[in-house]
This record gives sequence, structure tokens and C-alpha cells, in this order.
Amino acid sequence: MQKNFDAFDKVSANFVPLSPVSFLNHAETLHSQRTAVIYGNIKRSWAETAKRIRGFAKGLASMGIKKGDTVSVLCPNIPEMLELHFALPVSGAVLNTLNTRLEPETIAYILDHADTQLLIVDQELIPVVEKVFEIMGRSVPLIEISDPNAPSTHTLGGKNYDDVIETDIDVKPMSGFPRDEWDAICLNYTSGTSGRPKGVVYHHRGAYLMALGTIAAWQTPHYPIYLSVVPMFHCNGWGHPWVMAMLGGTVVFTRTMAADVLLDAIGKYAVTHFGAAPIILQMLTDAKSDDMKPFDPKVKVLTAGAPPPPSVLEKTKSMGLEVMQVYGLTETYGHISQCLWQESWEDLDDAKQAQLQAQQGIAMPMVDMVTVIDRDKDQPVPFDSQTQGEIAIRGNTVMKGYYKDIRATEDAFANGYFWSGDGAVVDPDGYIQIKDRLKDVIISGGENISSVEVEAVLFRHPSIQAAAIVAKPDPKWGEVPCAFVELRDGAEANEDDIISFCREHLAGFKTPKKIVFAELPKTSTGKIQKFKLRELAKSLD
Amino acid sequence: MQKNFDAFDKVSANFVPLSPVSFLNHAETLHSQRTAVIYGNIKRSWAETAKRIRGFAKGLASMGIKKGDTVSVLCPNIPEMLELHFALPVSGAVLNTLNTRLEPETIAYILDHADTQLLIVDQELIPVVEKVFEIMGRSVPLIEISDPNAPSTHTLGGKNYDDVIETDIDVKPMSGFPRDEWDAICLNYTSGTSGRPKGVVYHHRGAYLMALGTIAAWQTPHYPIYLSVVPMFHCNGWGHPWVMAMLGGTVVFTRTMAADVLLDAIGKYAVTHFGAAPIILQMLTDAKSDDMKPFDPKVKVLTAGAPPPPSVLEKTKSMGLEVMQVYGLTETYGHISQCLWQESWEDLDDAKQAQLQAQQGIAMPMVDMVTVIDRDKDQPVPFDSQTQGEIAIRGNTVMKGYYKDIRATEDAFANGYFWSGDGAVVDPDGYIQIKDRLKDVIISGGENISSVEVEAVLFRHPSIQAAAIVAKPDPKWGEVPCAFVELRDGAEANEDDIISFCREHLAGFKTPKKIVFAELPKTSTGKIQKFKLRELAKSLD
Repeated sequence: MQKNFDAFDKVSANFVPLSPVSFLNHAETLHSQRTAVIYGNIKRSWAETAKRIRGFAKGLASMGIKKGDTVSVLCPNIPEMLELHFALPVSGAVLNTLNTRLEPETIAYILDHADTQLLIVDQELIPVVEKVFEIMGRSVPLIEISDPNAPSTHTLGGKNYDDVIETDIDVKPMSGFPRDEWDAICLNYTSGTSGRPKGVVYHHRGAYLMALGTIAAWQTPHYPIYLSVVPMFHCNGWGHPWVMAMLGGTVVFTRTMAADVLLDAIGKYAVTHFGAAPIILQMLTDAKSDDMKPFDPKVKVLTAGAPPPPSVLEKTKSMGLEVMQVYGLTETYGHISQCLWQESWEDLDDAKQAQLQAQQGIAMPMVDMVTVIDRDKDQPVPFDSQTQGEIAIRGNTVMKGYYKDIRATEDAFANGYFWSGDGAVVDPDGYIQIKDRLKDVIISGGENISSVEVEAVLFRHPSIQAAAIVAKPDPKWGEVPCAFVELRDGAEANEDDIISFCREHLAGFKTPKKIVFAELPKTSTGKIQKFKLRELAKSLD
Repeated sequence: MQKNFDAFDKVSANFVPLSPVSFLNHAETLHSQRTAVIYGNIKRSWAETAKRIRGFAKGLASMGIKKGDTVSVLCPNIPEMLELHFALPVSGAVLNTLNTRLEPETIAYILDHADTQLLIVDQELIPVVEKVFEIMGRSVPLIEISDPNAPSTHTLGGKNYDDVIETDIDVKPMSGFPRDEWDAICLNYTSGTSGRPKGVVYHHRGAYLMALGTIAAWQTPHYPIYLSVVPMFHCNGWGHPWVMAMLGGTVVFTRTMAADVLLDAIGKYAVTHFGAAPIILQMLTDAKSDDMKPFDPKVKVLTAGAPPPPSVLEKTKSMGLEVMQVYGLTETYGHISQCLWQESWEDLDDAKQAQLQAQQGIAMPMVDMVTVIDRDKDQPVPFDSQTQGEIAIRGNTVMKGYYKDIRATEDAFANGYFWSGDGAVVDPDGYIQIKDRLKDVIISGGENISSVEVEAVLFRHPSIQAAAIVAKPDPKWGEVPCAFVELRDGAEANEDDIISFCREHLAGFKTPKKIVFAELPKTSTGKIQKFKLRELAKSLD
């Protein structure tokens, strides 16, 4: 009798909005005396951390911040950054983390586009903010974080972070939950691979499921000791700050990502888990001293951003790091597939193992489909390791859409999937392997670089007639941008000129590392044949 | 700008109803070649199992079963029982599992109350069904399962299970998902602790979160080897059938729960996980031969239904079973709190450890609140190990409500919580410990027995004037029902008479094991003082 089964209302006993706020509740009631953060001389329990979070959220309210307001944050991984991942959702505001390596022009664009009501900034980065305000021609209300461990501090006279924290708080059960789990929680800008950065809107439901699914995929026990390496401005640190609250974990911060500092911290605090881009793993293997013993018990590591080179996987294994590659995009809250280890790989040699581990793997538990689709035929490719298609994703950890960009949202969600833009094949065992970045993204040190964006800068140089940017393999960064340019008739410019010009307008990591002067190969219809340039770039030194 | 964040529609790319059906999709696409079930000579992969499930679901549709129809199942733990946990949700029907140990009267009551459209029965249990139909005065359409390992088989001429399975199936991605995650998925009757059994309605959302939360709480890796011990008619085996599909696990079936058979299976198939009531654990420790080596690696075990006696915990530990007690009710899909092990317990002696492990512990990750509330003061009790309150639960793994019983539903959900009826205290570390069953439930071998129900039978005996049932501690069953009776003036009856009379009307486990003839202690208002009888019962042998 359908009607009898449908007769029930949702009530507060049986329907609670899915939200990372629930993990804060767990942390402060179930794990209150556990250490939440360790950073230099700072060590705080979850009770203390939760009190700061609740107090900061109340302080935001006193400042007039209300539900649906965007609050932008420019800050490295330090305890305040973790706190903001709870304080802003609790306050109802939307957390917009900014890549600290972005050029002021792009930050200015984002603050405008995101309708930022308040900017929270680490005082080391005040000089960047000064330039941003100059470009914007206006300032934004500011809260400044004074970090005793920052190498330098500056001020623009903003309110101090600690002064915002109110101490007279009365926390009721379930306080801070969104009215609707579909409410926005974060706004994360893409690196703008096909032009301007796009604002990816996350919802509470997705952030909650991302955390619970990560625990299932990574088999994370309670009370992990987690080293904070993945920048929290990248997909909110792949959702890991929320996971740590739920499990009563301890988050170890170093501010700097220098290899020796990270290795010291792993040993000193008996770190059990961390996530990091392959470039960081390579740094760790390079920095490892010969007499260093492998970590025991092994440290569990997730890596993403680019497939880890086999050499790195072999070396990290010998160091006692148990690395699993995961794959995802800003639009999917970070990782949504995992290269799950198979017992049948045990007996293979290290090189073959490393090759298998460099696959993108299979859907994580909380994702409903990660599939590879032949868009011409509108059907999944066969599992033959050969036929290429585009990775398409369906699940609750896919963004609401792009902020103020309904057209791009509709394009991204065509035919019932989110389209990744990544070309891939599927192996007979169902494991997905990326073959090509359909959008010509360059991935350098874990950061996505849009060739279109760099080309746009080159095109502004008075001597340049035509230009194309492709990835050049690089032993340190994985890939670096390499420019092929045609000069105008009679114009003159050398490699240094052009690199300097780019550096004025682009973040360092986006600036081409190599300029090649040559006629660009084109199709009969005049389209540049980038695949030829990619081949050429591989042969350059 | 709130309105810009609210501008997005839910689309199929980013909003998928939470449902265990998604785990079947994972199993058949990501774990297809893994072994799903092992049972005697039967061994099937997830691909084969999924095909049988899809085919059975299609067969049900051909038989006219439609969304919202109740399908009841009377069957021990065998592969078909696992299949039905997916086939019925896929078909849109509601799965109503029946305790195979129930008396025909109660089954008849449930089939009537549940509006059962179809009954699926293991052929060993056909004689029970015959009696049920006799009591009902009508029959219900029947599908019969022929299990080659059943000790006896009978038939009432129903359709054969395997014949219902259609082979011409075309599975589309996302097929079988409910339109709404709040749709009913299961209907599980309570043991009727306060009178008639009540029909607890589960929804897809809750079943999904129960599975994902169990993985987080139990730290279950991919590919577990799971021994099917918890009856799937109890809270759907605590949701574990769904967990196994999601993780590509292998479920080992034995049909019988004889201790030697279970111990053999654990060794033979290298079982990694199972769940079982304390009584089963005790059976295993009793059956263990002296020369048996501890299981290595350790087998992870969840136990629930009653606090495990310290002696059992000590012995299971020495056997290589890593036991964690969990707590929950039918209304909460099974376990919602866990007695999570703490490092600080490591150095305590075995007896103290066992005592700590017998606590009900803290909320599982997917549950928002498991709290103990002083109902008079309407606030949580202090964490002082002394002040008693009632365990109250809030979260998405709380039932929709009681089928066709709006009043009981409203009572259960008063003031925004589900009220467990269990009296408990909270320790300074936040761990909950049950002190008293407020509803006088007797828990015998993991089965709840309602004192009210047994008393009702006693009251029907012509010689009995008054009666009260309380729990009597029992080394084997944990508790057994003990009857205190006052005979009518001049009437005569001895212990054997009364036990025989009860056995005619009650399942064996509900029949009192001891009858005491005495005047019942009463309050001034005439209410029987059960606490005095409980004390008396403890001193009996």
C-alpha cells in the first residue's frame, strides 16, 4: 500500500541535513579531549578548536555576515584555515578559498565575480591584497590573521582574526546546520583552463558525502595523525579537513612545504596519513637521506593532480609511504576515483606495479558513476584499453554548477553527466586510464595551467603574430608550459624578453619556461596542430 | 548573493537518490569478477549474482508486483536472502523479512498488518506457512526457494524462485533507483516489546547511510570475506548485505549456526569479518578445541543485541576475534553507537578491558546524536557515570515511522528525538552505558522478548490469577524469561503444566524457563514491583 508508506513526514528525529557541520558536532562531543591541531608551539584540542570556531562564527554574525554571503580566504595551510572550513558553514556564509599563488589580476577578477563581502587574509599575503585592491579600484572589508610562524607580516589595518572570536557563546545541539543540504557551502574557482576561472559551487550534501566516501575509500581509522600538505585552497584540501573532525584526527601543520620540514614532521608526530601532489612526493624522495629508515608503520598517502611517475612510486614505496593515486576535478570536490590496489599485482615487479598504480582506477564508493563515454556514439567505450572516450561522472559529489554562469553549467551537465574534458581508455578490469587532456591543460607541480590563458598574454606582446602553448615534460614539475611563437614581419624579440613580459602578467608557475621561434604547423582550415608541437616539445631540452 | 547560489536545479549529473541500489551498480561494474557468495557447492561472482537479482526483479514485475507493494520473506541466511535485499528495492517493492523463529500466530498478524502481496519462503519453512494460512483463513501468493542444503523440503505448490528469474534483461545505468530517496525500502517488525509487533519502515536514504557509516565505523577495507551470521531478518543483517556489495566482498553462508560449522568456515575461507549476537560468540568459545590456534590475521567482529559478558570478551580475544560491541534498535536500522577501542585501555587487565568493551559507546559517524536525556528536566544528563536518563537518537538512520500507526510514531518522535526506551548513564569520556531496559525487555540469545506478550499468554491459563515476567540471568542465553505467578483460589497447576501451556502458544525462546509460585509484590496503587522480582530472579538457580 504505497500510500501507507508515503504517510510519514520528515521530522527532526529522522531527517538531518547532510553537512560537514555534523562532523564538528561529533568532534566537540565525542572527541573533545583529542588533539585537533599541532603547529609550532600551538596545540589545541577539538574542544578548544570547536570553541574558537563557534566564537568566530558568532563574530562574523556580529559583523553582519549572513547566509549566502561570500567570504574569501587567502591563507596557507595553518590552523585558522582549518577553523574557517567549519566557521563559515556554521555561519551560513559561503567559503571561497583563493590559491595563494595566483596573480593579483586573477584574484581581483574572482573577488569581483564572487561578490565577496569579506576577505580573510594571512598577514604575509597583505602585499598581494594591496595590489588586488589597486586593480579593483576599491577595497573589501578585511580580517587579518597574525601567524607567529609567518616569515613576514604586514597590515592594511583590518580586524584581527583572534579579536573576531567571541567567547560568550551558547551552542545548542544541531546549531549551524543548513536549512537545506543543497545549500551552497563553498565556492572554488577553477584554474580557468578554457579562459576565465569559473566559480564552482559546492553544497553541504556533497561535502558530507565526500568525507564519508573518502573514509570508505581510504579505509581511514579513527584518530589519524594527518599532515596538512594538500593546499586547502584546492577543493578544500580534497575534503580532508572535514574527515579529520569526524574521526577525531590530529592535523599537523608546517606552513612551509619544504621537503625536510615535512619529513621531520612525519617522524616527529608519527603521522599516519596525508595527501599530496606527485611533485611533493618527488621532493620527499629527493630529500630523503641515505640513512633514513622506512616509516614503520607505513604512512598512507593519497596523490592526485597528475599521474605519479613510476620512479616516484618506486621510491616512495621503499620509504614506507603507501601511495594510492586518486583522480578528480574541482567540479567533483576533488577525488572521485581511486586506483585501488589489487592482490593480483603483488607478484609483479616494481616497474609494472608502478605503471598499474598510475591509472585513475575505479569510482569511489560515494560516486555513482565514473565512466568513459564515446561522445559520438553516446555510449560507454568497450573495456579494451584502446578505445578512447571522455571521462563522465554522475553522483552527489558533483558541483551545483558554475556561479553566475548558467550556460557553462548546462554545457558541463549535458546528457545527464558531468563531462571532465579528460580523454581516457578502460582496461579489461574496469580501471580507467587517462590518455589525453582534451582541453590542453598543462599540469605543473600539481597546478592546472590553461594554455588558452597563457596564449592570451603572449598575444598581447607587440612583436608576436601567433602563439601556442603546450606542455613540455619536466623532471621536477611534471610538465612546464612551452611557447611556440611566430613573430610579426620585421619585429624582433628574444626568449628573455618574452619570458619577462609573461612574468609581468602571469603567476610564476604559468610563465613559459621555454620559447621556441618557429612557424606553427596548421591544418588546412588554419587550426594549429598542437599534437605536433607536443611531440616537438618532448624533444627539446 | 544568496539568489545566485540558489539558482541551480538538481540534475541527474549532480543529484542521485541515496540508495543501496547504487552498491549493486558498483558491484556489477567494478567488482564483477569477484566472488559474491560461497555456500556449499555454490560459488557465484558479483556479475552472476547481479544478473540473478536483475532477473528476479524483472520476474516480480511480470508477476504484477509494483512500487510500494509489500513482499514478505521467510528464509534463513542463504544466497537468495542476500539477492532479495537488492531485487526487492530494484523492483520498487518493500522488503518485509520475517523472523524464522516466530510463532505462526505472529506471522499471520504481520502478513495481515503489512498488506503483504507476495510471500517468498524457504521450502523447509513451508509447514509454518501452512499454519499461518490456516490462522489467516486465506493464503497469500507464494514463491518457494529450493535450497539443496535444506534439511527438509515441502511445498504448497508456489512458484519456484529460480523460475521467476528472467534471463532476458537489459540493464540501463541507474536502473532501479527510487524516484525519491525517502521512499520505503524495508518493513521490519519489532519483537513487540510493548504488545503487538510494530512495523518499522526504513527508507533508501537511511539504508545507504547506514552502509557507508558502518564502513567508517568498522574500518572495513575493500574485498572483505564476510561470514553471514547475523540473521538478515534482524534489521536486514545490520545493513551488512549492502556493505558487502559496495566493497566487492564475499559472503560465506552456512545456513546452520552450529558453532563447529562456523569455526570451520572461518578457517576454510579465511573470513575477515562477521557480526553476531553475544550468545553466538559464547557458543564459539565453548566449542573451541584446546589445540585450536588463534585466528591470524584477527577476525573483526561486531556484536550487538545485549552487552557481551566479560568472560566472552576475554575468551574471544584469545581466539583471535577482535570484538567491538555496537548498540541499536530495529527503529535505527541496527547499530548506531559503537564501543570504540581507546589506546588508553591497552595497559588495563583483561577483566577491566572487557568491562569497558561492554559499554554502548559513542555515536557512529553517520548518526548525528546518540545522547542520554533526563526526560523530567528535558536536558542531557551530566557525564558522571551516575545520573540516569533515556537514550535518545537523532539522525538519518532513524525509521520513517511505524507502519499504519501514526500515534506510536508521534510518541516515538516526541521532542525531536527517537526515544529508545533504554535507561543509561554517560561516563566522563562520553561513553554511554545502559543500566536498565525501561520497557522490561528480556534479551535471550540476542532475541528481544516482550514481558507483556508472555504475560498475556500466562493470563490465559485458567489457573492463573496474576503473573509477571522478568529476566533471569542465564550463563548460556544471557537472560531467560522467568515467570512469577499467583494461582487462583483453589486452583492447582505445577511448573511443567504452565511451561507446556506457554510452549503451545509461544516460540520456544519466549517460553519461561522457570515458574515461581508466589504472591507478587505490589505498590500501593497496585502496580507490580518488577525490580523486586528481578532481584529475586537473580538469586534463583
